Amino acid sequence: MEKETRMETIKGFPATSHDDFPLNVTTILRHAVRNYAGQKIVSRTPGGIFRYTFKDSYERIQRLANALEALGIRQGDRVGVLEWNTYRYHELCFAIPGIAAVMLQMNMRLSPSDLVYVANHAQAELVFVDETAIPAAEAIAAEFTPRKGWVILTDKKPADIAAKLKPLYTYEDLLRQAKPEHSWPLIDETSAYAGCYTTGTTGRPKGVYYSHRNGYLMACTAALNLELTLRDSLLQLVPIYHVVGWFNHHAALLTGAKIVFPGRFTTQDMGPIIDLMVQEKVTAGVAGTAVYMPMLEYIRGMEKKPDFSRVRFVSGASRPPISMIKGFYELTGATVYHGYGATENTAWATTNKPKPWTAAHLTNEEKWAQQRKQGLMVVGCDVRIVGANGTDVPHDGKSPGELLMRAPWVNRTYYNTPEAAGRFTEDGYWRSGDVATIDLEGYIEIVDRLKDVIKSGGEWISSVDMENEIMEHPAVLEAAVCGIPHPKWDERPLALAVLRPDFKGKTTKEDIIKHLSRRFAKWQLPDEVKFVDEIPKTSVGKFKKSAIREQYRDEYMKKQG
Amino acid sequence: MEKETRMETIKGFPATSHDDFPLNVTTILRHAVRNYAGQKIVSRTPGGIFRYTFKDSYERIQRLANALEALGIRQGDRVGVLEWNTYRYHELCFAIPGIAAVMLQMNMRLSPSDLVYVANHAQAELVFVDETAIPAAEAIAAEFTPRKGWVILTDKKPADIAAKLKPLYTYEDLLRQAKPEHSWPLIDETSAYAGCYTTGTTGRPKGVYYSHRNGYLMACTAALNLELTLRDSLLQLVPIYHVVGWFNHHAALLTGAKIVFPGRFTTQDMGPIIDLMVQEKVTAGVAGTAVYMPMLEYIRGMEKKPDFSRVRFVSGASRPPISMIKGFYELTGATVYHGYGATENTAWATTNKPKPWTAAHLTNEEKWAQQRKQGLMVVGCDVRIVGANGTDVPHDGKSPGELLMRAPWVNRTYYNTPEAAGRFTEDGYWRSGDVATIDLEGYIEIVDRLKDVIKSGGEWISSVDMENEIMEHPAVLEAAVCGIPHPKWDERPLALAVLRPDFKGKTTKEDIIKHLSRRFAKWQLPDEVKFVDEIPKTSVGKFKKSAIREQYRDEYMKKQG
Repeated sequence: MEKETRMETIKGFPATSHDDFPLNVTTILRHAVRNYAGQKIVSRTPGGIFRYTFKDSYERIQRLANALEALGIRQGDRVGVLEWNTYRYHELCFAIPGIAAVMLQMNMRLSPSDLVYVANHAQAELVFVDETAIPAAEAIAAEFTPRKGWVILTDKKPADIAAKLKPLYTYEDLLRQAKPEHSWPLIDETSAYAGCYTTGTTGRPKGVYYSHRNGYLMACTAALNLELTLRDSLLQLVPIYHVVGWFNHHAALLTGAKIVFPGRFTTQDMGPIIDLMVQEKVTAGVAGTAVYMPMLEYIRGMEKKPDFSRVRFVSGASRPPISMIKGFYELTGATVYHGYGATENTAWATTNKPKPWTAAHLTNEEKWAQQRKQGLMVVGCDVRIVGANGTDVPHDGKSPGELLMRAPWVNRTYYNTPEAAGRFTEDGYWRSGDVATIDLEGYIEIVDRLKDVIKSGGEWISSVDMENEIMEHPAVLEAAVCGIPHPKWDERPLALAVLRPDFKGKTTKEDIIKHLSRRFAKWQLPDEVKFVDEIPKTSVGKFKKSAIREQYRDEYMKKQG
Repeated sequence: MEKETRMETIKGFPATSHDDFPLNVTTILRHAVRNYAGQKIVSRTPGGIFRYTFKDSYERIQRLANALEALGIRQGDRVGVLEWNTYRYHELCFAIPGIAAVMLQMNMRLSPSDLVYVANHAQAELVFVDETAIPAAEAIAAEFTPRKGWVILTDKKPADIAAKLKPLYTYEDLLRQAKPEHSWPLIDETSAYAGCYTTGTTGRPKGVYYSHRNGYLMACTAALNLELTLRDSLLQLVPIYHVVGWFNHHAALLTGAKIVFPGRFTTQDMGPIIDLMVQEKVTAGVAGTAVYMPMLEYIRGMEKKPDFSRVRFVSGASRPPISMIKGFYELTGATVYHGYGATENTAWATTNKPKPWTAAHLTNEEKWAQQRKQGLMVVGCDVRIVGANGTDVPHDGKSPGELLMRAPWVNRTYYNTPEAAGRFTEDGYWRSGDVATIDLEGYIEIVDRLKDVIKSGGEWISSVDMENEIMEHPAVLEAAVCGIPHPKWDERPLALAVLRPDFKGKTTKEDIIKHLSRRFAKWQLPDEVKFVDEIPKTSVGKFKKSAIREQYRDEYMKKQG
């Protein structure tokens, strides 16, 4: 495979195509209502199921566009949204960018301090807030003032809303007062459509602003990956505040599929979502493993299992849990594909679809092993996997390197964040910070985070692989592996292990090393295995590797190899 | 529905997307080989079935790119191709544009004089010629000289080729001598990828040059319309020399579907094509009615009908023959969708897919009536239907107007053909010259050619509709309707009818008028019905309306209304 490192373009013969006709997200909306006016949008609300058609939705989107202009929102302005996945968010997704303003996605799960940072960094002029998120809005209002005010997403009248937010409007009131027809401008395709901020664990959120061109192309990519047609029913599970919901509902508009919004729900009770799926004959969707796991648990408890044999789910997580994929298939007939994405990549990077022409040659075991990978890069996205020595690794499914991507929908920079410029290469790639392998069939597997991979003598060792292998030892409850500074090899692995009560004092470092030798080369084995009572963890339960590295930073410094 | 007449774009907030990363057709190729290296390409040849993989094909495409450069082909050069649908044409489709040269499609069905015109108009530097097309190449060589010569597409050695073409090369020889690896440049996306000439019946062929951006977007559009996935097997029936085969094989590369090339075949014997479909488990394809009709006839004669229940065919013709669509479904289980396209629109304009949410409300009769229409405009393409008075017609499925389209893949001009500038509007639309209606559901129906529609007192009457209605009268063998100059109404309809032998002398003008009154308003009825022995026809069997209009031009000039 050649290295895809060219960036300068060459010019050929002039075409007669209409190349200056812009790709606009608004185009998808206009065309959906012309072709699929009668198709349904279904939205779960606290008051029950709300239903309307693409045509009804289009009429409200036109009113909303006029209402935005009446409030003084102009092209280029940023407009914040704090909302769950509802038909109103869908309307906002098209009305705000439709007038060439920017839909700023405010993540409902961010801390108030990060939300303040995001809103101020983006300089939002107006913010739409779901009624349930009023406390969150009030919490940030002390340090952030949208000049044009706040709009509450509610069925209530302004007088019935108790909120310390000024000026305050209510959504349905604005729509009622607005003119019913709007003439959409053509928008320069490099204009921002939506702004989205990362939720990285280190540092402040970083913002990317997706262009209309980017959005249009990603909607096509999502439609192709979800294999959507006008005979489908899409469940918009992934939050819209996460990278525009992976552009799923855009893809549904593009293809004429029915759209189902789950509204606010809790993973503690997946019953209402399962009911919704059955009732609306859902066939496709994307969500995180954190949603599919409790969904499957709920299904396990159901006496009569739902028939999801037409359903294709895409599931995103760093490690696809094969038992979950198998479980869905065996209990409901649903197909779950693993997927991988990132904010900087406008969500969609890979999908793990089995190839019929290779499936015939694989054992069942091998098939499941392949499903463990992140999958095939979406078409249109260049990939490099760059190893420790700065060159592309072989496509052998073994050699690790940092995953780099470039495409019209991979961002070229973060907005107004010069300190992060190093995350982008000169030839247009974004450095994902993920360490991956790629095999001859094109399947990519994420094996570690770059900051956690162990850099030993110019080679990389996956800390995650080693942790998983140690945890397969019957004596081990949990284990963490870190790279610790070493005078000769830069870093060498150090393992921490918590033993199960029955094995304490009986299992030795040598036992663990011997166990690891089955899969790891001698030079990869950890120099030290420490048995501890507890491994430091972050607030969300991940290993706190920075703390481990700090604690053991001098451990190897006197060693000589 | 608003009128989509804006053309100026407005600029919003700057995005951080990689908007200057070009859309290149080459991208599709590179990504297909990374993701789907083992997928098959199957090609019918005179010597039997040829099979190889995407990977094998990619290696030959790299050699071909190097061979082109070795022959002196540079970015921007036009390179002609005279070939049937084979794996070699597929290779040419990617190697020529891959080095930023232009693939000039030379229609195998054009007359030598038109071929000479096209080759000289495009200034082709080099021409690839299938061995069976050597006589055609020799016929044009007297008046057209490609400076870099001719390459014969054959398995033979140069010494075994008898052709009066100089300099002469053979394809396999060039590939053998070329370097096996090629590094693809990024190409400015407005550079031409392919040149294609119309085959209009009036005047010289007119050329359009599709940009890489255009090609990439059309490949996505084709994939979505064909609903292709990596589990499909695409039969590339529509000639590649017709608008790059509607970008079907590009869509297959994009999605990982198997590609099947039929090679040269004749509609007199569709057996080999049916056998190929069965053997290669074909599931999708596009072709003209002129291919599907004999295919269905062949199937009628088969004792055991093939199972095509997974097959989706798209069929292009001005009037979709419902009996053919029904026949395929009843005999084989195949679904045939009607489609409509044009060279200027990079092929794909509409597809007629039934909507599950309307199907429930329609009678069987109504369903088939809907299938008679051209269908829904592909997403991304703006549509106007402009009536006699220059304004957009209502979307009522009845009011006729000229169909205008604009999209990134609708051309903005003809290459070097100033006399045809009037076919494009200032706000970026191409005037199709087709008269159509559009209904509230978005289904478009072509009712006439603009030059044949009868312009009577500021209203339009479809000549085709009236002809079809007259031909439904049991006494009528065939009928043509024309607009004839009229002093008061500009034009009025005149009908010519050939009676069946048994009815001659027994059927009157009044019978025909009465028959027409069932469907046409009084003001639409023809002023005259002439019974003739024969209707003038063109060489391809169409009514020669220009001759009819000429013959009867004074018929109404003395009338006063």
